[in-house]
Amino acid sequence: MLTSIKRLLIGRPLKSNELGEQKLNKTKALAILSSDALSSVAYGPEQILIVLFTIGAAAFWYSVPIAVGVLILLTALILSYRQIIFAYPHGGGAYVVSKSNLGVNAGLIAGGSLLVDYILTVAVSVSAGTDAITSAFPALHGYNVEIALVFVFLITILNLRGVTESASVLAYPVYLFVLALFILIGVGLFKILTGGVSPHLHNPIGTPVAGISLFILLRAFASGSSALTGVEAISNAIPNFKEPAPNNAAKTLLAMGALLAILFSGIVFLAYYYGITPNEKVTVVSQIAEETFGRNFVYFFIQGTTALILVLAANTGYSAFPLLAVNLAKDKFIPRMFLIRGDRLGYSNGIIILGMASMILIIVFQATTEHLIPLYAIGVFLPFTLSQSGMMVKWLREKPKGWVPKFIINTTGALISFTVTLIFLVTKFTQVWPILIFLPLIVYLFHRIKKHYEAVGAQLSLKTSEPPVTIEGNVMIVPVAGMTHVVENTLNYAKSLAPAHIIAVYVAFDREAVKDFEEKWKKWQPEVRLVTLYSYYRSIINPLTKFVDTVEHKAREGNYQVTVVIPQFIPKKGWHNILHNQSSLLIRTFLLYRRNVVVSTVPFHLKR
Amino acid sequence: MLTSIKRLLIGRPLKSNELGEQKLNKTKALAILSSDALSSVAYGPEQILIVLFTIGAAAFWYSVPIAVGVLILLTALILSYRQIIFAYPHGGGAYVVSKSNLGVNAGLIAGGSLLVDYILTVAVSVSAGTDAITSAFPALHGYNVEIALVFVFLITILNLRGVTESASVLAYPVYLFVLALFILIGVGLFKILTGGVSPHLHNPIGTPVAGISLFILLRAFASGSSALTGVEAISNAIPNFKEPAPNNAAKTLLAMGALLAILFSGIVFLAYYYGITPNEKVTVVSQIAEETFGRNFVYFFIQGTTALILVLAANTGYSAFPLLAVNLAKDKFIPRMFLIRGDRLGYSNGIIILGMASMILIIVFQATTEHLIPLYAIGVFLPFTLSQSGMMVKWLREKPKGWVPKFIINTTGALISFTVTLIFLVTKFTQVWPILIFLPLIVYLFHRIKKHYEAVGAQLSLKTSEPPVTIEGNVMIVPVAGMTHVVENTLNYAKSLAPAHIIAVYVAFDREAVKDFEEKWKKWQPEVRLVTLYSYYRSIINPLTKFVDTVEHKAREGNYQVTVVIPQFIPKKGWHNILHNQSSLLIRTFLLYRRNVVVSTVPFHLKR
Repeated sequence: MLTSIKRLLIGRPLKSNELGEQKLNKTKALAILSSDALSSVAYGPEQILIVLFTIGAAAFWYSVPIAVGVLILLTALILSYRQIIFAYPHGGGAYVVSKSNLGVNAGLIAGGSLLVDYILTVAVSVSAGTDAITSAFPALHGYNVEIALVFVFLITILNLRGVTESASVLAYPVYLFVLALFILIGVGLFKILTGGVSPHLHNPIGTPVAGISLFILLRAFASGSSALTGVEAISNAIPNFKEPAPNNAAKTLLAMGALLAILFSGIVFLAYYYGITPNEKVTVVSQIAEETFGRNFVYFFIQGTTALILVLAANTGYSAFPLLAVNLAKDKFIPRMFLIRGDRLGYSNGIIILGMASMILIIVFQATTEHLIPLYAIGVFLPFTLSQSGMMVKWLREKPKGWVPKFIINTTGALISFTVTLIFLVTKFTQVWPILIFLPLIVYLFHRIKKHYEAVGAQLSLKTSEPPVTIEGNVMIVPVAGMTHVVENTLNYAKSLAPAHIIAVYVAFDREAVKDFEEKWKKWQPEVRLVTLYSYYRSIINPLTKFVDTVEHKAREGNYQVTVVIPQFIPKKGWHNILHNQSSLLIRTFLLYRRNVVVSTVPFHLKR
Repeated sequence: MLTSIKRLLIGRPLKSNELGEQKLNKTKALAILSSDALSSVAYGPEQILIVLFTIGAAAFWYSVPIAVGVLILLTALILSYRQIIFAYPHGGGAYVVSKSNLGVNAGLIAGGSLLVDYILTVAVSVSAGTDAITSAFPALHGYNVEIALVFVFLITILNLRGVTESASVLAYPVYLFVLALFILIGVGLFKILTGGVSPHLHNPIGTPVAGISLFILLRAFASGSSALTGVEAISNAIPNFKEPAPNNAAKTLLAMGALLAILFSGIVFLAYYYGITPNEKVTVVSQIAEETFGRNFVYFFIQGTTALILVLAANTGYSAFPLLAVNLAKDKFIPRMFLIRGDRLGYSNGIIILGMASMILIIVFQATTEHLIPLYAIGVFLPFTLSQSGMMVKWLREKPKGWVPKFIINTTGALISFTVTLIFLVTKFTQVWPILIFLPLIVYLFHRIKKHYEAVGAQLSLKTSEPPVTIEGNVMIVPVAGMTHVVENTLNYAKSLAPAHIIAVYVAFDREAVKDFEEKWKKWQPEVRLVTLYSYYRSIINPLTKFVDTVEHKAREGNYQVTVVIPQFIPKKGWHNILHNQSSLLIRTFLLYRRNVVVSTVPFHLKR
């Protein structure tokens, strides 16, 4: 039954050689990989205005030069990442680039920070989308957590189904959102040009503002930069592209950068020209839309696609997290289960872990994750800085033909990213300090895991360690709970393997019963030696373990191997298991993990 | 570490022969077994007034004759249960009495209804006690669920520590509560007799009341009878008493009946004389106390002990549930795990299941369990009726010396209980209907479980079924994932047991790698046959199972037994397990439950 639910949710399993069919073309890739970046347009400009509003509405004109700054940063990032795509055509995430140019620890800082960041992406964007929906339908208020969890569940299922299927579903909302914002910006600009909007709503650029400070401006710039999270996604996901993958990825990246630049500057400009004030209840985009169209169909279309793209922005996390995890797992820094492809050829473990972790975040923060945004932004700009610096080192070291302009581009990117990181650290320290604790922790954990894998490898290797001792003979210990066919079956098995050395062990709770049992046993299995142990504390494990230890100690002297042969009857139906003591399971697990004995389970399948 | 937490919480394990020391003397037994019944005094009288208040305050005088009715019912129940104690000195719960006199199904209805009822007892009384506490400390409001869960947890721990230890802790609050109510009733009566209370506060008994109906009176009577829940607890728990157990139990029962009668009639009378009106925010007992003493120390003493005894009333459920479960499990109607005595000689599984089930109820009903009270009351009066009817049948059948008065007592008890049950069904149908669904279900489940146990017994028995076939030889299948010491160790083991018939199986995901693997294998283990299976869907289980099936099918013809020998390396530290694929665990479980092969696990303990 579980299997059929799984089939229904994620579809039939795919053969390994069907992998090629799952690759993305540019149109789908743009939709799937840019929803995070594009959706930030819905809150990035607003973040700038919120910071400026602490001074007053008079300071709003600063949003225009700040937006220019953000656009410069965006250009630098897009160009830098374009170079990374060609330099690392097998997927050049910040982890790979930093590791190969700046050393393992830089790579691990970038990788760890991004791993956590993708979880934050999912939690933050799904919560934001849910907010947008419950604002539109007040009846749903109070169910934010539940709705957000359902969304995460659905996105997880979509991703488990596989890359292209989720891309097909996701392409429409992303393009609808882009279309909606183009209409909004176009009509808005047309109205302004035709004089439909009063120019008295805003202060002219350059008006002196009392109380403005560099700190405020930097803070506003940093807040605006949070709209750039997600631009790295394409460079991580090159292996998902159709061939020629690097070219297709680079083109997609440029398209995304252009779209992002147009939408971001359009929204900032309209907000400035309309003189819009940030408001807790109505978003800036919503105010612009209302100002332009009134509350008609177009307004609701814009609001609806915005909510949808916020939810779907989570999907970028789902594309990037598993691939990053694969890179880390290949280098043995995280459990190797992240390397396994699931039924639909996606890296299911990464997808499932990401889904569960973000569900936990949503539950813990009760779907109000806004104050996680700065943490999430710094978690992006730190790897930005590291990967651009890595590229700088690469150009300096390799000096290929025409490396100087490339070096300049990456240096610009590195400097701006580093500055933004510093600005975040200084201006939003109260919200971003946790990164200073969890990053060292996570890097330490990565090293511990790698050390373990290497130790295991060395111990198992035929080349570097001693072979195990040869076995001269076998002793079979059979724990028995009564005189039944299950026990008889098990004894038959033990006799077929090592007839000379079988010991049946009976753990008794009641002194009276022992003698009776021993007498009956002599008649039933005269050739099998029976040892009776008395348990004061009604435990089977303890006396049995002590006995096994004694036997094992003696057996080891003659290089004999001890096997504990456990009789187990298997009920016909699953639910019957709760009707029986699971002692055999307990004994098996305990002995296997604590003692050096082989544990054999002899099943006796009940027929009804 | 888990073990030391367990030791800290529940204490050192006790030997089986220390059981006698855990028995209860009368003083402790009264405290432990009557907290449920006595605590009902805190809400029983109030329930009567609430029903009468639907007519108006003029009807309050009816509470006095209704209380007389409840006292008659109480007397009948106490006398009936006294007879049950002597007739069934090994614990005469409604289950045992009904089963042996009225047949299995009557017993199961009584038993099933009580099992559910004890869970309701715990949830209802802990919630009520929590309510009392959060009313006194408004800062705690909003944490009702958490507080109630902590109480259930603490009571569960106390009971896991063992019977006498929990009795020692519980004795004080119960006696303090009795003392507090005695003071209240004594001072109240003294004030009335000395004329300190105006007799004009109430209508004289017999005043005609407009709108009163038999339905209302019956409903009020049924509500008042809910104060009698818990009187059966002593008759279930006779095995917990010191010798002579039946005599001690009977004396304890009489003492409890007397206390309950005094407290109940005292409270009803004071409430009537003071003209107290039920009020959602202040309980009737609290109003009486305030009227008598004002809000001074005595008032808070009464309120405090009331809150405490309400919480502790849950403990009655903890004494009775595990013992009832033992009786049902002995007859194979519920899983036999309820028969096992834990470290401290209590029936821990019953205690834990009860605790968990009531925690679930508290969470589901958000600690507002008042509307469960009628359900809980009918769940008590149904077994009351069945056990008294059972006693009637017993006297009629056995006719021992002087059986007639005994018969009359039980008949009276049966008739009144039956009437109360009917009244509940008719007057509170909207609240008690679920019992009509879950009782048949639970009885059906009991029968299913018994049928399963009997089928298993017959299949295992040496007398009633065919012995298993003898094994002529062995085939060993060793799944291998590579060429390492773990595999070598496992092959050595297989060679020591059945050198002639070993098949190593390698499941490959990658066609290229296969040839290379096969060549290396020939050099490494030339004498062991290697079979390579190719997995299209990246699953190890499926191809392996198919192969095992083929081998098993062939082996069966020659009465050969197939053993799958699984290499498993055991990491040094528990957390390392998440770093390794648990394929061996999966293979083991799957093969064991689905196929007729022996599964042996050969551990390879890592040293670092």
